[in-house]
Amino acid sequence: MDKVRVGVIGMGRQGKIHSKNLAYKISDAELVCVAEIYLDEAKEWAEAEGLAADIDMYKDYRQVLEREDVDAVIVASSTDTHAQVVKDACKAQKDILCEKPIAPTLEEIDEVLEIVEESGVKFMVAFNRRFDPTFSRVREHVENGNVGQPHIVNITSRDPEPPHYEYLKVCGGIFFDTTVHDFDMARYLSGDEIVEVYATGSVLVDEKIGELGDLDTTMLTLKFKSGAVGSINNSRETGYSYDQRVEVFGSKGCAVANNETPNRVELTNPEGTHKDVPLYFNIERYPEAFLGEAEAFVKAVKNDEEPPVTGEDGRIAVVLSMAAQKSYEENRPVKIEEIG
Amino acid sequence: MDKVRVGVIGMGRQGKIHSKNLAYKISDAELVCVAEIYLDEAKEWAEAEGLAADIDMYKDYRQVLEREDVDAVIVASSTDTHAQVVKDACKAQKDILCEKPIAPTLEEIDEVLEIVEESGVKFMVAFNRRFDPTFSRVREHVENGNVGQPHIVNITSRDPEPPHYEYLKVCGGIFFDTTVHDFDMARYLSGDEIVEVYATGSVLVDEKIGELGDLDTTMLTLKFKSGAVGSINNSRETGYSYDQRVEVFGSKGCAVANNETPNRVELTNPEGTHKDVPLYFNIERYPEAFLGEAEAFVKAVKNDEEPPVTGEDGRIAVVLSMAAQKSYEENRPVKIEEIG
Amino acid sequence: MDKVRVGVIGMGRQGKIHSKNLAYKISDAELVCVAEIYLDEAKEWAEAEGLAADIDMYKDYRQVLEREDVDAVIVASSTDTHAQVVKDACKAQKDILCEKPIAPTLEEIDEVLEIVEESGVKFMVAFNRRFDPTFSRVREHVENGNVGQPHIVNITSRDPEPPHYEYLKVCGGIFFDTTVHDFDMARYLSGDEIVEVYATGSVLVDEKIGELGDLDTTMLTLKFKSGAVGSINNSRETGYSYDQRVEVFGSKGCAVANNETPNRVELTNPEGTHKDVPLYFNIERYPEAFLGEAEAFVKAVKNDEEPPVTGEDGRIAVVLSMAAQKSYEENRPVKIEEIG
Amino acid sequence: MDKVRVGVIGMGRQGKIHSKNLAYKISDAELVCVAEIYLDEAKEWAEAEGLAADIDMYKDYRQVLEREDVDAVIVASSTDTHAQVVKDACKAQKDILCEKPIAPTLEEIDEVLEIVEESGVKFMVAFNRRFDPTFSRVREHVENGNVGQPHIVNITSRDPEPPHYEYLKVCGGIFFDTTVHDFDMARYLSGDEIVEVYATGSVLVDEKIGELGDLDTTMLTLKFKSGAVGSINNSRETGYSYDQRVEVFGSKGCAVANNETPNRVELTNPEGTHKDVPLYFNIERYPEAFLGEAEAFVKAVKNDEEPPVTGEDGRIAVVLSMAAQKSYEENRPVKIEEIG
Repeated sequence: MDKVRVGVIGMGRQGKIHSKNLAYKISDAELVCVAEIYLDEAKEWAEAEGLAADIDMYKDYRQVLEREDVDAVIVASSTDTHAQVVKDACKAQKDILCEKPIAPTLEEIDEVLEIVEESGVKFMVAFNRRFDPTFSRVREHVENGNVGQPHIVNITSRDPEPPHYEYLKVCGGIFFDTTVHDFDMARYLSGDEIVEVYATGSVLVDEKIGELGDLDTTMLTLKFKSGAVGSINNSRETGYSYDQRVEVFGSKGCAVANNETPNRVELTNPEGTHKDVPLYFNIERYPEAFLGEAEAFVKAVKNDEEPPVTGEDGRIAVVLSMAAQKSYEENRPVKIEEIG
Repeated sequence: MDKVRVGVIGMGRQGKIHSKNLAYKISDAELVCVAEIYLDEAKEWAEAEGLAADIDMYKDYRQVLEREDVDAVIVASSTDTHAQVVKDACKAQKDILCEKPIAPTLEEIDEVLEIVEESGVKFMVAFNRRFDPTFSRVREHVENGNVGQPHIVNITSRDPEPPHYEYLKVCGGIFFDTTVHDFDMARYLSGDEIVEVYATGSVLVDEKIGELGDLDTTMLTLKFKSGAVGSINNSRETGYSYDQRVEVFGSKGCAVANNETPNRVELTNPEGTHKDVPLYFNIERYPEAFLGEAEAFVKAVKNDEEPPVTGEDGRIAVVLSMAAQKSYEENRPVKIEEIG
Repeated sequence: MDKVRVGVIGMGRQGKIHSKNLAYKISDAELVCVAEIYLDEAKEWAEAEGLAADIDMYKDYRQVLEREDVDAVIVASSTDTHAQVVKDACKAQKDILCEKPIAPTLEEIDEVLEIVEESGVKFMVAFNRRFDPTFSRVREHVENGNVGQPHIVNITSRDPEPPHYEYLKVCGGIFFDTTVHDFDMARYLSGDEIVEVYATGSVLVDEKIGELGDLDTTMLTLKFKSGAVGSINNSRETGYSYDQRVEVFGSKGCAVANNETPNRVELTNPEGTHKDVPLYFNIERYPEAFLGEAEAFVKAVKNDEEPPVTGEDGRIAVVLSMAAQKSYEENRPVKIEEIG
Repeated sequence: MDKVRVGVIGMGRQGKIHSKNLAYKISDAELVCVAEIYLDEAKEWAEAEGLAADIDMYKDYRQVLEREDVDAVIVASSTDTHAQVVKDACKAQKDILCEKPIAPTLEEIDEVLEIVEESGVKFMVAFNRRFDPTFSRVREHVENGNVGQPHIVNITSRDPEPPHYEYLKVCGGIFFDTTVHDFDMARYLSGDEIVEVYATGSVLVDEKIGELGDLDTTMLTLKFKSGAVGSINNSRETGYSYDQRVEVFGSKGCAVANNETPNRVELTNPEGTHKDVPLYFNIERYPEAFLGEAEAFVKAVKNDEEPPVTGEDGRIAVVLSMAAQKSYEENRPVKIEEIG
């Protein structure tokens, strides 16, 4: 295969990032076409980005799947459509990079994964943070033995501000919307499986979040198969910026990943020594991660290799979120095997 | 009162630190006498430190209590004697700074605290970390509103190496020996009360610790009265040094306390940028805290004020350790009111 | 003007960076054509980068200048051709972003600048570091008064390894090849003019550099018009990576810019706390600076504004390098007015 | 020798620090007596510090020298008396730790050093910063080869605020009062000798300093025997605190010493990440250095060894200050051999 010819389905924020990366930054990929139900808006954007002349644009994603010259698709359409699009892409024998979650229920996820399995297409779930240079450096320290056997994993993951109320209503709750990424990070960093979760939390940021039956501040305890323990703490609002730090402590050392800042300047004056706040949110914080994720997918397709994040990885993260939800509701530790 | 005249009971590691601080660094205090059952060894030490000529030394602590010119005592004798010494000191009307724990059981603690109450003497429990310049600066940021309403408290507290096996056998387990300090720190930093604890842990450092029925690696979830959540993680062995970090995240900001290092040098070479490991253990890490604690006690005695750490503070930390132990044993969150 | 249509002259390392930025990252620019005497190699590169279909490629730069649909050119050809290309571009009425130096001698620079002046085209000299987010943040702290009146400017600027011997022979010496950037940085950061320079140095890295009559380790003292003082230290070899730090100390504070590192991970083990080395060299360290520079040029052309780095800026940096050379040769401070 | 019995001559700020360290912190030393012309004030201080009962106090320093039970003296009297006190101490065969400078002129220094030489007493000059844990760690990195051959030494040394005007009038100027310490530091860190100095500077902090013919902001270039180069920058006023940083860059790495801060807390809020200012001045910054210096002297006396800072070290620092003064006055680099 020369270049991997990719179609992007769904041109929201993620779809746009992927499209630009494919068109401009991944030399082994060619952006062939995109699909978006709000086609006019997508066309305007493509024009502004200098992409309009080079790609075909469709309203119906099935037109992307019908094209024989498309090798692979990125599924970045609205969450409720993922399952159907993936199934159709399997039928069309396109390799798939799918934004999370694969589907809203475990039954549907299992159905999709079965279809993927049968179809034989490559399938990767978009846990982009695995491709962040800082987090992947921590993983490297674990993998090459610098940390030794992991004993404790701590993850801090806090948003600068809550999402819109409309989004909050449909996102499935903080465990499914936010913690799901941290569950994947905990598995990725430790190279271990979580066997038990205890989750607690509060509504401290915005009462309206509580009225939705959701939480905005959470603390989770993780227990790993190896006996290692972990914690995840989440907040919907720091006020300052994206607070994304991880730590793996083990028998030989401790690898700590701090926040990225926009520059390396320190100003000292009589009030103290001051640095600028960390980068604001995921768009600012994770550009290399979005790019690295798409590159890894394109590489897997091109070289006919297993993608580095599997459908099973996507499934497990949802199972863990379900366990967290159950743990919170019943205020007790929940074994993962209770969920499925 | 001109200078506070102090007697130190018990000349182990803590007693020696207190004695030197009283003799040489606290201008409002005068070290009058000390008691130690291994009197010869204590005398040798006093000689070496230039203290021998200035203080009286007794084998029996009751001789300290009998002296009319002693205003206050520091109880630093072996743990199992604390209760009796405190009771006797109350009878002798001496103000008391007592190393933790006050007594091994809640019943005995309550009995001691009742006697203290009736006696009217000042009573302070020795949670020295409250007087560390770094941790007290975090508290200051909380107190003066820089952090806003606390939402999340994270405490990392790991020893460089496990204590001797003989000590492990009698220390009461990691929750009573190690986590007890972190419970106090969580209360101190947040200015809030813990209402529920969930504790889990493993034996990953040394199997012999497991054979004692103890843990060497733990993770605790805290729930505070205000709805704030927290975590404490402990390990008996880092291999590098004392890893003592805390963080309070709130509605207005996040105060993070990092480890102290012996110097501020960074060496950059082709392998990376290198700093020396943090200070090794509590003796190296907390000299200002030991001093600050004794100063605070002396100040309270001199000015006839309430000491900054009360008997109740000592009691609560033990109650929380008991809740942690119960939580671990029953693998469920335990409400503090279940304990007493 | 809709988009600024740009031709790039010279497809060495700089030309390639500029071409990709224009084609893919600067929405207000359109890369129309490039010129390169080694045309085949340039074509191969364009193919690999997905640019081949969209741009015209010439062997002779005059073909770029002849095109009426080219608004502006970036002059990134070999150093000895800059003057001629700029003059021709002036005649063709193209706006110009010119890599430094404009010309090898002051007479030629003055001649070029006069022709630029008469032609009325926009002319910008490529001091890219001004557009680095870290250095421009320091400048911002000076500009907005956080530093107060600058008193001391310190610049550390050290290469990871010496350039090839062939390059060393023609680069004009360390003051013209390396320090020239730091002179511009000193002027940019302080917003002040250097009036006197004292330069000293040694050959400590490689004797062959000395045999060329050049230095590999230098220290310069700067005196500014305002009375502020400064220092620049250069080395041709750190062994670790690009060491690029600056500091402006003033009446109200001190702004310090540290090195950029590839990630924010710290590993602590018994040997110490370790971070990865800073980014290796200018390609790794300054991608945003190369982009920001081209963006600033395109913006100036589009909005018919004065570019932020002028021909005069390019001239002064060369004058300062000449003063440094003279100072070193005569081992005495040299007033800038001595040079011209 | 059991304990070294020390007398302190002069009970100003330094004398008091030395007295407390000798009395309370250096187990191999015994503070026997002190001398101070303002005896009443010294007595009051000794009372407050709990020293009154243990030491003898004299108005006339010769009474200290007359005591046979005094092994060594610390000369901390006013600067103009150093030479005479040292000469008398030599005659009395007391070992000497002398605050800098030894004497105001080179002739007098040479005369004193000759008398010291003939007397055979141990003689140490008080460059306390050599004993700071941070700076001595940098020296260690140089000594053990981590830095390789030193190529560049940079020293930043800035006071929080100017001294009193009365002091400014008699201190001999910034090169003799401030830079003299940095010259010693440059020699100490590099293990090399300075052969040429170029000094420039300005009056930017306070015009009154200029009216005294002095400078408040300086920049010096150093050239070492090995070919290494260096810089020293000084300011009389940071506004924030003591800014004391050093750096040695060499063939194998770069050791950087940053400022000490009172705690390790970082507060992040929407305005940025904030740390407290570095420690305020030498009393706050260098307690370990003052202690380490006296310990090193006591150790040398006790073990009959050469003290780690010699009279020659004290002499050279003054010669370098003279070279700096001459360089500034004549605005040219000055070879050290020009001075003597």
